[in-house]
Amino acid sequence: MEPRVLAVLGRGVVPLDTPLLRADDVGATRGDGAFETMHVREGEAWLLDRHLSRLETSAKRLDLELPPTTAIADLIATALSVWPAGREGGVKLVCTRGPEEGGGPTVYALVFPIGIGPLRQRRQGVRVASAPVGYTADARAAAPWLLGGVKSLSYAMNMAALRWAAAQGLDDVLFVSSDGQVLEGPTSTVVWAVDDTLCTVPDDTGILPGITTAYLFDNADELGLATARRRATLDDLLAADGVWLCSSVRGITQITELDGKPLADPGLTPALRDVLGFPV
Amino acid sequence: MEPRVLAVLGRGVVPLDTPLLRADDVGATRGDGAFETMHVREGEAWLLDRHLSRLETSAKRLDLELPPTTAIADLIATALSVWPAGREGGVKLVCTRGPEEGGGPTVYALVFPIGIGPLRQRRQGVRVASAPVGYTADARAAAPWLLGGVKSLSYAMNMAALRWAAAQGLDDVLFVSSDGQVLEGPTSTVVWAVDDTLCTVPDDTGILPGITTAYLFDNADELGLATARRRATLDDLLAADGVWLCSSVRGITQITELDGKPLADPGLTPALRDVLGFPV
Repeated sequence: MEPRVLAVLGRGVVPLDTPLLRADDVGATRGDGAFETMHVREGEAWLLDRHLSRLETSAKRLDLELPPTTAIADLIATALSVWPAGREGGVKLVCTRGPEEGGGPTVYALVFPIGIGPLRQRRQGVRVASAPVGYTADARAAAPWLLGGVKSLSYAMNMAALRWAAAQGLDDVLFVSSDGQVLEGPTSTVVWAVDDTLCTVPDDTGILPGITTAYLFDNADELGLATARRRATLDDLLAADGVWLCSSVRGITQITELDGKPLADPGLTPALRDVLGFPV
Repeated sequence: MEPRVLAVLGRGVVPLDTPLLRADDVGATRGDGAFETMHVREGEAWLLDRHLSRLETSAKRLDLELPPTTAIADLIATALSVWPAGREGGVKLVCTRGPEEGGGPTVYALVFPIGIGPLRQRRQGVRVASAPVGYTADARAAAPWLLGGVKSLSYAMNMAALRWAAAQGLDDVLFVSSDGQVLEGPTSTVVWAVDDTLCTVPDDTGILPGITTAYLFDNADELGLATARRRATLDDLLAADGVWLCSSVRGITQITELDGKPLADPGLTPALRDVLGFPV
Protein backbone atom coordinates (compact mmCIF):
# COMPACT_ATOMS: atom_id res chain seq x y z
CA MET A 1 0.00 0.00 0.00
CA GLU A 2 1.18 3.48 -0.80
CA PRO A 3 1.71 5.67 2.25
CA ARG A 4 -0.93 8.35 2.65
CA VAL A 5 -0.09 11.97 1.81
CA LEU A 6 -1.20 14.99 3.82
CA ALA A 7 -1.09 18.58 2.52
CA VAL A 8 -2.24 21.50 4.67
CA LEU A 9 -3.38 24.87 3.36
CA GLY A 10 -0.62 27.40 3.86
CA ARG A 11 1.94 24.74 4.75
CA GLY A 12 2.17 22.26 1.88
CA VAL A 13 2.94 18.58 2.36
CA VAL A 14 3.62 17.56 5.96
CA PRO A 15 4.04 14.13 7.58
CA LEU A 16 0.71 12.36 8.16
CA ASP A 17 1.28 12.12 11.89
CA THR A 18 1.67 15.89 12.24
CA PRO A 19 -0.76 17.14 14.91
CA LEU A 20 -2.96 19.57 13.05
CA LEU A 21 -6.28 20.64 14.57
CA ARG A 22 -6.43 22.72 17.72
CA ALA A 23 -8.44 21.29 20.61
CA ASP A 24 -10.98 24.11 20.29
CA ASP A 25 -11.45 23.77 16.54
CA VAL A 26 -15.19 23.23 16.19
CA GLY A 27 -14.36 20.77 13.44
CA ALA A 28 -13.14 18.57 16.29
CA THR A 29 -15.57 19.52 19.06
CA ARG A 30 -18.77 19.88 17.00
CA GLY A 31 -18.17 18.08 13.69
CA ASP A 32 -18.66 21.56 12.28
CA GLY A 33 -17.20 21.84 8.80
CA ALA A 34 -17.54 20.38 5.31
CA PHE A 35 -15.68 17.79 3.28
CA GLU A 36 -15.45 16.10 -0.09
CA THR A 37 -13.91 12.81 -1.14
CA MET A 38 -12.73 12.30 -4.72
CA HIS A 39 -11.33 9.48 -6.80
CA VAL A 40 -7.67 9.86 -7.74
CA ARG A 41 -6.81 8.62 -11.22
CA GLU A 42 -3.92 9.50 -13.53
CA GLY A 43 -2.53 11.81 -10.88
CA GLU A 44 -5.65 13.96 -10.65
CA ALA A 45 -8.78 14.30 -8.55
CA TRP A 46 -11.54 13.07 -10.86
CA LEU A 47 -14.52 15.42 -11.31
CA LEU A 48 -12.74 18.01 -9.19
CA ASP A 49 -14.85 20.95 -10.37
CA ARG A 50 -18.11 19.22 -9.51
CA HIS A 51 -16.80 18.29 -6.07
CA LEU A 52 -15.62 21.84 -5.42
CA SER A 53 -19.04 23.10 -6.46
CA ARG A 54 -20.77 20.71 -4.03
CA LEU A 55 -18.35 21.83 -1.31
CA GLU A 56 -19.45 25.41 -1.97
CA THR A 57 -23.08 24.39 -1.55
CA SER A 58 -22.26 22.63 1.73
CA ALA A 59 -20.36 25.68 2.96
CA LYS A 60 -23.16 28.03 2.01
CA ARG A 61 -25.75 25.97 3.90
CA LEU A 62 -23.41 25.75 6.89
CA ASP A 63 -22.66 29.49 6.73
CA LEU A 64 -19.01 28.46 6.53
CA GLU A 65 -16.36 30.58 4.90
CA LEU A 66 -14.19 28.62 2.48
CA PRO A 67 -10.78 29.62 1.14
CA PRO A 68 -10.83 30.63 -2.54
CA THR A 69 -11.63 27.70 -4.86
CA THR A 70 -8.28 28.09 -6.60
CA ALA A 71 -6.47 27.73 -3.26
CA ILE A 72 -8.35 24.50 -2.55
CA ALA A 73 -7.61 23.15 -6.01
CA ASP A 74 -3.94 24.07 -5.56
CA LEU A 75 -3.88 22.32 -2.20
CA ILE A 76 -5.22 19.11 -3.76
CA ALA A 77 -2.68 19.39 -6.57
CA THR A 78 0.10 19.84 -4.01
CA ALA A 79 -0.95 16.66 -2.21
CA LEU A 80 -1.19 14.74 -5.49
CA SER A 81 2.22 15.99 -6.66
CA VAL A 82 3.85 13.46 -4.32
CA TRP A 83 1.39 10.63 -5.09
CA PRO A 84 2.50 8.11 -7.74
CA ALA A 85 0.90 9.31 -10.98
CA GLY A 86 -0.35 5.91 -12.12
CA ARG A 87 -1.74 4.85 -8.76
CA GLU A 88 -5.46 4.76 -8.07
CA GLY A 89 -6.46 6.34 -4.77
CA GLY A 90 -8.81 8.72 -3.04
CA VAL A 91 -8.38 12.25 -1.75
CA LYS A 92 -10.37 13.76 1.08
CA LEU A 93 -10.62 17.53 1.36
CA VAL A 94 -11.58 18.78 4.84
CA CYS A 95 -12.50 22.32 5.81
CA THR A 96 -13.38 22.95 9.46
CA ARG A 97 -14.89 26.14 10.87
CA GLY A 98 -11.74 26.64 12.95
CA PRO A 99 -11.20 27.54 16.61
CA GLU A 100 -14.25 28.79 18.53
CA GLU A 101 -12.84 32.21 19.19
CA GLY A 102 -11.64 32.78 15.65
CA GLY A 103 -8.42 32.14 13.81
CA GLY A 104 -9.84 30.72 10.60
CA PRO A 105 -10.58 27.27 9.25
CA THR A 106 -8.28 24.27 9.16
CA VAL A 107 -8.10 23.06 5.56
CA TYR A 108 -6.29 19.96 4.38
CA ALA A 109 -6.16 17.30 1.70
CA LEU A 110 -5.45 13.67 2.54
CA VAL A 111 -4.58 11.23 -0.27
CA PHE A 112 -5.05 7.56 0.54
CA PRO A 113 -4.85 4.18 -1.20
CA ILE A 114 -8.14 2.36 -1.72
CA GLY A 115 -8.65 -0.30 0.93
CA ILE A 116 -8.95 -3.99 0.23
CA GLY A 117 -12.57 -3.97 1.43
CA PRO A 118 -13.87 -1.36 -1.04
CA LEU A 119 -11.89 -2.97 -3.89
CA ARG A 120 -13.42 -6.35 -3.11
CA GLN A 121 -16.90 -4.79 -2.89
CA ARG A 122 -16.37 -3.13 -6.26
CA ARG A 123 -15.75 -6.58 -7.77
CA GLN A 124 -18.14 -8.73 -5.77
CA GLY A 125 -20.95 -6.39 -4.81
CA VAL A 126 -22.39 -5.69 -1.39
CA ARG A 127 -24.94 -7.20 0.96
CA VAL A 128 -27.04 -4.41 2.39
CA ALA A 129 -29.54 -3.82 5.20
CA SER A 130 -32.15 -1.09 5.01
CA ALA A 131 -32.32 1.26 7.98
CA PRO A 132 -35.04 3.81 8.77
CA VAL A 133 -33.80 7.34 9.37
CA GLY A 134 -37.00 8.32 11.15
CA TYR A 135 -37.99 11.34 9.08
CA THR A 136 -40.09 11.63 5.95
CA ALA A 137 -38.57 12.15 2.51
CA ASP A 138 -39.78 15.76 2.59
CA ALA A 139 -38.63 16.65 6.11
CA ARG A 140 -35.18 17.96 5.26
CA ALA A 141 -36.29 20.24 2.44
CA ALA A 142 -38.56 22.04 4.94
CA ALA A 143 -35.95 22.38 7.69
CA PRO A 144 -32.58 23.80 6.64
CA TRP A 145 -31.02 23.09 10.06
CA LEU A 146 -31.33 19.36 9.28
CA LEU A 147 -28.58 20.03 6.71
CA GLY A 148 -30.08 18.06 3.85
CA GLY A 149 -27.72 18.01 0.86
CA VAL A 150 -24.79 19.06 3.04
CA LYS A 151 -21.63 16.96 3.33
CA SER A 152 -20.77 18.05 6.86
CA LEU A 153 -18.14 16.58 9.16
CA SER A 154 -20.93 15.27 11.43
CA TYR A 155 -20.98 11.69 10.16
CA ALA A 156 -21.23 9.84 13.48
CA MET A 157 -24.70 8.56 12.56
CA ASN A 158 -23.51 7.35 9.16
CA MET A 159 -20.57 5.57 10.78
CA ALA A 160 -22.85 4.04 13.43
CA ALA A 161 -25.12 2.69 10.68
CA LEU A 162 -22.14 1.06 8.95
CA ARG A 163 -20.98 -0.52 12.23
CA TRP A 164 -24.53 -1.76 12.77
CA ALA A 165 -24.47 -3.42 9.34
CA ALA A 166 -20.99 -4.88 9.90
CA ALA A 167 -22.13 -6.40 13.20
CA GLN A 168 -24.67 -8.40 11.15
CA GLY A 169 -21.99 -9.50 8.70
CA LEU A 170 -23.26 -7.05 6.06
CA ASP A 171 -21.36 -4.55 3.94
CA ASP A 172 -23.50 -1.46 3.72
CA VAL A 173 -26.74 0.30 4.58
CA LEU A 174 -29.59 1.86 2.65
CA PHE A 175 -31.41 4.61 4.53
CA VAL A 176 -35.19 4.67 4.17
CA SER A 177 -37.53 7.51 5.13
CA SER A 178 -40.35 7.05 7.63
CA ASP A 179 -42.79 7.19 4.71
CA GLY A 180 -41.09 4.22 3.10
CA GLN A 181 -38.96 5.95 0.50
CA VAL A 182 -35.44 4.87 -0.32
CA LEU A 183 -32.98 7.72 0.32
CA GLU A 184 -29.24 6.95 0.14
CA GLY A 185 -26.41 4.99 1.74
CA PRO A 186 -24.29 6.43 4.57
CA THR A 187 -21.52 7.20 2.03
CA SER A 188 -23.19 6.47 -1.31
CA THR A 189 -26.08 7.16 -3.69
CA VAL A 190 -28.45 4.41 -4.80
CA VAL A 191 -29.00 3.67 -8.49
CA TRP A 192 -31.35 1.07 -9.96
CA ALA A 193 -32.37 -0.15 -13.39
CA VAL A 194 -35.92 -0.58 -14.66
CA ASP A 195 -35.82 -2.03 -18.18
CA ASP A 196 -33.56 0.35 -20.10
CA THR A 197 -33.74 3.19 -17.61
CA LEU A 198 -31.26 3.97 -14.84
CA CYS A 199 -32.99 5.57 -11.86
CA THR A 200 -31.83 7.45 -8.78
CA VAL A 201 -33.43 9.37 -5.93
CA PRO A 202 -34.31 13.04 -6.59
CA ASP A 203 -32.41 15.72 -4.67
CA ASP A 204 -35.62 17.17 -3.17
CA THR A 205 -35.51 14.34 -0.61
CA GLY A 206 -32.56 16.05 1.09
CA ILE A 207 -30.05 13.37 0.03
CA LEU A 208 -26.51 14.36 -0.78
CA PRO A 209 -26.53 14.76 -4.57
CA GLY A 210 -24.16 12.06 -5.84
CA ILE A 211 -21.44 13.33 -8.16
CA THR A 212 -20.38 9.94 -9.50
CA THR A 213 -24.05 9.17 -10.13
CA ALA A 214 -24.52 12.48 -11.95
CA TYR A 215 -21.57 11.62 -14.20
CA LEU A 216 -23.03 8.18 -14.83
CA PHE A 217 -26.38 9.69 -15.77
CA ASP A 218 -24.72 12.23 -18.05
CA ASN A 219 -23.08 9.37 -19.93
CA ALA A 220 -25.71 6.64 -19.72
CA ASP A 221 -26.56 7.08 -23.41
CA GLU A 222 -23.19 5.43 -24.17
CA LEU A 223 -24.86 2.25 -22.92
CA GLY A 224 -28.16 2.95 -24.64
CA LEU A 225 -29.78 3.66 -21.28
CA ALA A 226 -32.22 6.39 -20.40
CA THR A 227 -32.18 8.01 -16.95
CA ALA A 228 -34.79 9.13 -14.45
CA ARG A 229 -34.89 10.66 -11.01
CA ARG A 230 -37.83 9.21 -9.16
CA ARG A 231 -38.88 8.23 -5.67
CA ALA A 232 -38.95 4.51 -4.87
CA THR A 233 -39.75 2.06 -2.09
CA LEU A 234 -37.77 -0.98 -0.99
CA ASP A 235 -40.28 -3.10 -2.91
CA ASP A 236 -39.45 -1.13 -6.05
CA LEU A 237 -35.79 -2.00 -5.57
CA LEU A 238 -36.56 -5.66 -4.91
CA ALA A 239 -38.43 -5.71 -8.23
CA ALA A 240 -35.79 -3.71 -10.16
CA ASP A 241 -33.46 -5.04 -12.86
CA GLY A 242 -30.38 -4.42 -10.73
CA VAL A 243 -29.52 -2.03 -7.90
CA TRP A 244 -26.17 -0.36 -7.18
CA LEU A 245 -24.49 1.92 -4.68
CA CYS A 246 -22.44 4.64 -6.27
CA SER A 247 -19.71 6.59 -4.48
CA SER A 248 -16.62 8.57 -5.34
CA VAL A 249 -13.86 6.22 -4.29
CA ARG A 250 -15.38 2.73 -4.29
CA GLY A 251 -17.10 3.58 -7.54
CA ILE A 252 -20.16 1.56 -8.45
CA THR A 253 -20.93 -1.67 -6.62
CA GLN A 254 -23.90 -3.94 -7.16
CA ILE A 255 -26.24 -4.71 -4.28
CA THR A 256 -26.45 -8.48 -4.38
CA GLU A 257 -28.72 -8.84 -1.38
CA LEU A 258 -31.09 -6.39 0.32
CA ASP A 259 -32.52 -7.28 3.73
CA GLY A 260 -31.64 -10.91 3.09
CA LYS A 261 -33.36 -11.07 -0.30
CA PRO A 262 -31.33 -11.57 -3.50
CA LEU A 263 -31.54 -8.78 -6.08
CA ALA A 264 -31.59 -9.20 -9.84
CA ASP A 265 -28.25 -9.17 -11.67
CA PRO A 266 -28.69 -7.92 -15.25
CA GLY A 267 -24.94 -8.33 -15.94
CA LEU A 268 -24.69 -4.58 -16.33
CA THR A 269 -22.11 -3.86 -13.63
CA PRO A 270 -18.94 -4.09 -15.77
CA ALA A 271 -20.41 -1.72 -18.36
CA LEU A 272 -21.43 0.80 -15.69
CA ARG A 273 -17.98 0.58 -14.12
CA ASP A 274 -16.38 1.14 -17.52
CA VAL A 275 -18.45 4.24 -18.21
CA LEU A 276 -17.26 5.59 -14.88
CA GLY A 277 -13.68 4.60 -15.69
CA PHE A 278 -13.05 2.61 -12.52
CA PRO A 279 -10.64 -0.29 -12.77
CA VAL A 280 -11.88 -3.72 -11.67
CA MET B 1 -11.75 36.81 31.13
CA GLU B 2 -9.56 34.00 32.37
CA PRO B 3 -7.46 32.35 29.66
CA ARG B 4 -8.66 28.89 28.70
CA VAL B 5 -6.75 25.83 29.92
CA LEU B 6 -6.05 22.72 27.86
CA ALA B 7 -4.92 19.40 29.32
CA VAL B 8 -4.26 16.37 27.10
CA LEU B 9 -4.30 12.75 28.25
CA GLY B 10 -0.75 11.52 28.60
CA ARG B 11 0.72 15.00 28.26
CA GLY B 12 -0.77 17.22 30.96
CA VAL B 13 -1.36 20.93 30.52
CA VAL B 14 -0.24 22.34 27.15
CA PRO B 15 -0.78 25.75 25.52
CA LEU B 16 -4.25 26.13 24.01
CA ASP B 17 -2.89 26.76 20.54
CA THR B 18 -1.00 23.45 20.50
CA PRO B 19 -1.99 21.52 17.37
CA LEU B 20 -3.48 18.33 18.71
CA LEU B 21 -5.62 16.14 16.45
CA ARG B 22 -4.15 14.34 13.49
CA ALA B 23 -5.73 15.03 10.10
CA ASP B 24 -6.98 11.43 9.91
CA ASP B 25 -8.48 11.37 13.39
CA VAL B 26 -12.10 10.42 12.74
CA GLY B 27 -13.01 12.85 15.49
CA ALA B 28 -12.05 15.50 12.92
CA THR B 29 -13.13 13.83 9.67
CA ARG B 30 -16.36 12.15 10.86
CA GLY B 31 -17.38 13.89 14.11
CA ASP B 32 -16.82 10.41 15.53
CA GLY B 33 -16.32 10.53 19.28
CA ALA B 34 -18.08 11.56 22.47
CA PHE B 35 -17.95 14.55 24.76
CA GLU B 36 -19.28 16.02 27.99
CA THR B 37 -19.44 19.59 29.24
CA MET B 38 -19.50 20.31 32.97
CA HIS B 39 -19.88 23.35 35.19
CA VAL B 40 -16.73 24.34 37.07
CA ARG B 41 -17.35 25.63 40.58
CA GLU B 42 -15.06 25.80 43.60
CA GLY B 43 -12.25 24.36 41.53
CA GLU B 44 -14.13 21.20 40.62
CA ALA B 45 -16.22 19.78 37.79
CA TRP B 46 -19.73 19.73 39.23
CA LEU B 47 -21.58 16.39 39.03
CA LEU B 48 -18.45 14.81 37.59
CA ASP B 49 -19.51 11.23 38.33
CA ARG B 50 -22.84 11.63 36.56
CA HIS B 51 -21.15 13.17 33.53
CA LEU B 52 -18.58 10.37 33.39
CA SER B 53 -21.39 7.86 33.60
CA ARG B 54 -23.22 9.51 30.68
CA LEU B 55 -19.94 9.56 28.73
CA GLU B 56 -19.71 5.80 29.27
CA THR B 57 -23.22 5.37 27.87
CA SER B 58 -22.32 7.47 24.82
CA ALA B 59 -19.14 5.47 24.28
CA LYS B 60 -20.97 2.17 24.61
CA ARG B 61 -23.57 3.17 22.00
CA LEU B 62 -20.81 4.44 19.71
CA ASP B 63 -18.75 1.27 20.25
CA LEU B 64 -15.97 3.61 21.33
CA GLU B 65 -13.22 2.57 23.71
CA LEU B 66 -12.68 5.09 26.50
CA PRO B 67 -9.63 5.43 28.71
CA PRO B 68 -10.22 4.27 32.31
CA THR B 69 -12.64 6.54 34.18
CA THR B 70 -9.98 7.36 36.74
CA ALA B 71 -7.64 8.57 33.98
CA ILE B 72 -10.37 10.87 32.62
CA ALA B 73 -11.12 12.21 36.11
CA ASP B 74 -7.39 12.80 36.67
CA LEU B 75 -7.15 14.63 33.34
CA ILE B 76 -9.97 16.97 34.32
CA ALA B 77 -8.34 17.54 37.73
CA THR B 78 -5.05 18.35 35.99
CA ALA B 79 -6.73 20.96 33.82
CA LEU B 80 -8.53 22.46 36.83
CA SER B 81 -5.32 22.57 38.89
CA VAL B 82 -4.26 25.65 36.93
CA TRP B 83 -7.73 27.27 36.90
CA PRO B 84 -8.38 29.89 39.61
CA ALA B 85 -10.19 27.99 42.39
CA GLY B 86 -12.89 30.57 42.99
CA ARG B 87 -13.67 31.21 39.34
CA GLU B 88 -16.82 29.88 37.70
CA GLY B 89 -16.27 28.21 34.35
CA GLY B 90 -16.98 25.21 32.19
CA VAL B 91 -14.92 22.19 31.23
CA LYS B 92 -15.36 20.19 28.06
CA LEU B 93 -14.06 16.64 27.93
CA VAL B 94 -13.54 15.30 24.39
CA CYS B 95 -12.74 11.73 23.40
CA THR B 96 -12.33 11.00 19.68
CA ARG B 97 -12.10 7.56 18.10
CA GLY B 98 -8.57 8.42 16.94
CA PRO B 99 -6.81 7.99 13.59
CA GLU B 100 -8.55 5.77 11.03
CA GLU B 101 -5.80 3.18 10.94
CA GLY B 102 -5.44 2.95 14.70
CA GLY B 103 -3.29 4.68 17.26
CA GLY B 104 -5.92 5.26 19.91
CA PRO B 105 -8.24 8.10 20.83
CA THR B 106 -7.38 11.74 21.36
CA VAL B 107 -8.61 12.73 24.81
CA TYR B 108 -8.50 16.22 26.25
CA ALA B 109 -10.10 18.58 28.73
CA LEU B 110 -10.66 22.24 27.93
CA VAL B 111 -11.54 24.67 30.74
CA PHE B 112 -13.16 27.92 29.66
CA PRO B 113 -14.73 31.02 31.20
CA ILE B 114 -18.48 31.42 30.76
CA GLY B 115 -19.29 33.81 27.94
CA ILE B 116 -21.16 37.06 28.35
CA GLY B 117 -24.04 35.71 26.25
CA PRO B 118 -24.83 32.67 28.43
CA LEU B 119 -24.43 34.76 31.61
CA ARG B 120 -26.89 37.32 30.30
CA GLN B 121 -29.32 34.58 29.26
CA ARG B 122 -29.08 33.07 32.75
CA ARG B 123 -30.24 36.40 34.19
CA GLN B 124 -32.66 37.57 31.52
CA GLY B 125 -34.03 34.37 30.00
CA VAL B 126 -34.14 33.36 26.35
CA ARG B 127 -36.38 33.88 23.35
CA VAL B 128 -36.80 30.57 21.57
CA ALA B 129 -38.07 29.23 18.23
CA SER B 130 -39.37 25.69 17.89
CA ALA B 131 -37.84 23.61 15.10
CA PRO B 132 -39.08 20.27 13.78
CA VAL B 133 -36.46 17.51 13.69
CA GLY B 134 -38.48 15.49 11.20
CA TYR B 135 -38.73 12.21 13.10
CA THR B 136 -41.28 10.96 15.60
CA ALA B 137 -40.60 10.90 19.33
CA ASP B 138 -40.26 7.11 19.13
CA ALA B 139 -38.00 6.90 16.08
CA ARG B 140 -34.66 6.99 17.86
CA ALA B 141 -35.49 4.33 20.41
CA ALA B 142 -36.17 1.92 17.53
CA ALA B 143 -33.02 2.75 15.54
CA PRO B 144 -29.76 2.69 17.50
CA TRP B 145 -27.76 4.13 14.56
CA LEU B 146 -29.68 7.39 15.05
CA LEU B 147 -27.64 7.70 18.26
CA GLY B 148 -30.47 8.78 20.55
CA GLY B 149 -29.17 9.57 24.03
CA VAL B 150 -25.60 9.86 22.73
CA LYS B 151 -23.53 13.03 23.16
CA SER B 152 -21.44 12.55 20.03
CA LEU B 153 -19.08 15.04 18.40
CA SER B 154 -21.48 15.28 15.43
CA TYR B 155 -23.22 18.49 16.45
CA ALA B 156 -23.30 20.29 13.09
CA MET B 157 -27.11 20.09 13.01
CA ASN B 158 -27.39 21.47 16.54
CA MET B 159 -25.06 24.33 15.65
CA ALA B 160 -26.99 25.01 12.42
CA ALA B 161 -30.22 25.23 14.42
CA LEU B 162 -28.66 27.78 16.78
CA ARG B 163 -27.40 29.85 13.83
CA TRP B 164 -30.90 29.68 12.31
CA ALA B 165 -32.34 31.05 15.56
CA ALA B 166 -29.69 33.76 15.86
CA ALA B 167 -30.43 34.89 12.30
CA GLN B 168 -33.98 35.66 13.51
CA GLY B 169 -32.65 37.57 16.52
CA LEU B 170 -33.52 34.67 18.87
CA ASP B 171 -31.42 32.99 21.54
CA ASP B 172 -32.19 29.31 21.35
CA VAL B 173 -34.15 26.48 19.78
CA LEU B 174 -36.59 23.84 20.98
CA PHE B 175 -36.65 20.70 18.84
CA VAL B 176 -40.08 19.18 18.22
CA SER B 177 -40.80 15.70 16.82
CA SER B 178 -42.84 15.19 13.67
CA ASP B 179 -45.69 13.97 15.87
CA GLY B 180 -45.73 17.27 17.71
CA GLN B 181 -43.85 16.35 20.85
CA VAL B 182 -41.36 18.64 22.49
CA LEU B 183 -37.91 17.03 22.66
CA GLU B 184 -34.96 19.16 23.76
CA GLY B 185 -32.78 22.12 22.84
CA PRO B 186 -29.61 21.77 20.73
CA THR B 187 -27.53 21.99 23.93
CA SER B 188 -30.15 21.84 26.68
CA THR B 189 -33.05 19.97 28.28
CA VAL B 190 -36.50 21.53 28.60
CA VAL B 191 -38.22 21.80 31.98
CA TRP B 192 -41.68 23.22 32.66
CA ALA B 193 -43.94 23.76 35.65
CA VAL B 194 -47.57 22.73 35.94
CA ASP B 195 -48.96 23.90 39.28
CA ASP B 196 -46.52 22.48 41.84
CA THR B 197 -44.93 19.93 39.54
CA LEU B 198 -41.73 20.31 37.54
CA CYS B 199 -41.88 18.33 34.31
CA THR B 200 -39.35 17.22 31.73
CA VAL B 201 -39.30 14.98 28.66
CA PRO B 202 -38.83 11.23 29.26
CA ASP B 203 -35.63 9.59 28.05
CA ASP B 204 -37.52 7.11 25.84
CA THR B 205 -37.85 9.89 23.24
CA GLY B 206 -34.15 9.53 22.46
CA ILE B 207 -33.23 12.90 23.98
CA LEU B 208 -29.91 13.31 25.73
CA PRO B 209 -30.76 12.75 29.39
CA GLY B 210 -30.02 16.06 31.10
CA ILE B 211 -27.71 15.82 34.09
CA THR B 212 -28.43 19.29 35.48
CA THR B 213 -32.13 18.55 35.10
CA ALA B 214 -31.73 15.22 36.91
CA TYR B 215 -30.03 17.03 39.80
CA LEU B 216 -32.82 19.61 39.86
CA PHE B 217 -35.45 16.88 39.98
CA ASP B 218 -33.59 15.04 42.74
CA ASN B 219 -33.71 18.22 44.81
CA ALA B 220 -37.04 19.73 43.81
CA ASP B 221 -38.57 18.81 47.18
CA GLU B 222 -36.41 21.59 48.70
CA LEU B 223 -38.81 23.93 46.89
CA GLY B 224 -41.90 21.92 47.77
CA LEU B 225 -42.21 20.83 44.13
CA ALA B 226 -43.10 17.40 42.79
CA THR B 227 -41.54 16.12 39.55
CA ALA B 228 -42.79 14.23 36.52
CA ARG B 229 -41.41 12.96 33.25
CA ARG B 230 -44.09 13.27 30.63
CA ARG B 231 -44.50 13.96 26.95
CA ALA B 232 -45.78 17.40 25.96
CA THR B 233 -46.71 19.50 22.95
CA LEU B 234 -45.85 23.12 22.23
CA ASP B 235 -49.40 23.99 23.34
CA ASP B 236 -48.70 22.32 26.68
CA LEU B 237 -45.66 24.58 27.12
CA LEU B 238 -47.60 27.69 26.10
CA ALA B 239 -50.12 26.83 28.83
CA ALA B 240 -47.52 25.89 31.46
CA ASP B 241 -46.67 27.87 34.60
CA GLY B 242 -43.14 28.60 33.37
CA VAL B 243 -40.71 26.90 30.98
CA TRP B 244 -36.92 26.68 31.25
CA LEU B 245 -33.91 25.36 29.38
CA CYS B 246 -31.45 23.57 31.57
CA SER B 247 -27.82 22.91 30.65
CA SER B 248 -24.54 22.23 32.39
CA VAL B 249 -22.73 25.52 31.95
CA ARG B 250 -25.42 28.14 31.38
CA GLY B 251 -27.46 26.51 34.13
CA ILE B 252 -31.19 27.16 34.11
CA THR B 253 -32.64 29.94 31.99
CA GLN B 254 -36.27 30.86 31.62
CA ILE B 255 -37.91 30.82 28.20
CA THR B 256 -39.59 34.21 28.05
CA GLU B 257 -40.96 33.83 24.55
CA LEU B 258 -41.69 30.74 22.42
CA ASP B 259 -42.41 31.19 18.71
CA GLY B 260 -43.20 34.84 19.38
CA LYS B 261 -45.65 34.15 22.21
CA PRO B 262 -44.86 35.22 25.79
CA LEU B 263 -44.64 32.42 28.36
CA ALA B 264 -45.81 32.60 31.96
CA ASP B 265 -43.33 33.75 34.59
CA PRO B 266 -44.14 32.25 37.98
CA GLY B 267 -41.17 34.01 39.60
CA LEU B 268 -39.59 30.64 40.24
CA THR B 269 -36.34 31.11 38.32
CA PRO B 270 -34.16 32.44 41.21
CA ALA B 271 -35.22 29.53 43.42
CA LEU B 272 -34.46 26.97 40.72
CA ARG B 273 -31.09 28.59 40.09
CA ASP B 274 -30.33 28.51 43.82
CA VAL B 275 -31.15 24.81 44.11
CA LEU B 276 -28.71 24.20 41.27
CA GLY B 277 -26.13 26.44 42.92
CA PHE B 278 -25.53 28.70 39.92
CA PRO B 279 -24.59 32.31 40.64
CA VAL B 280 -26.72 35.05 39.10
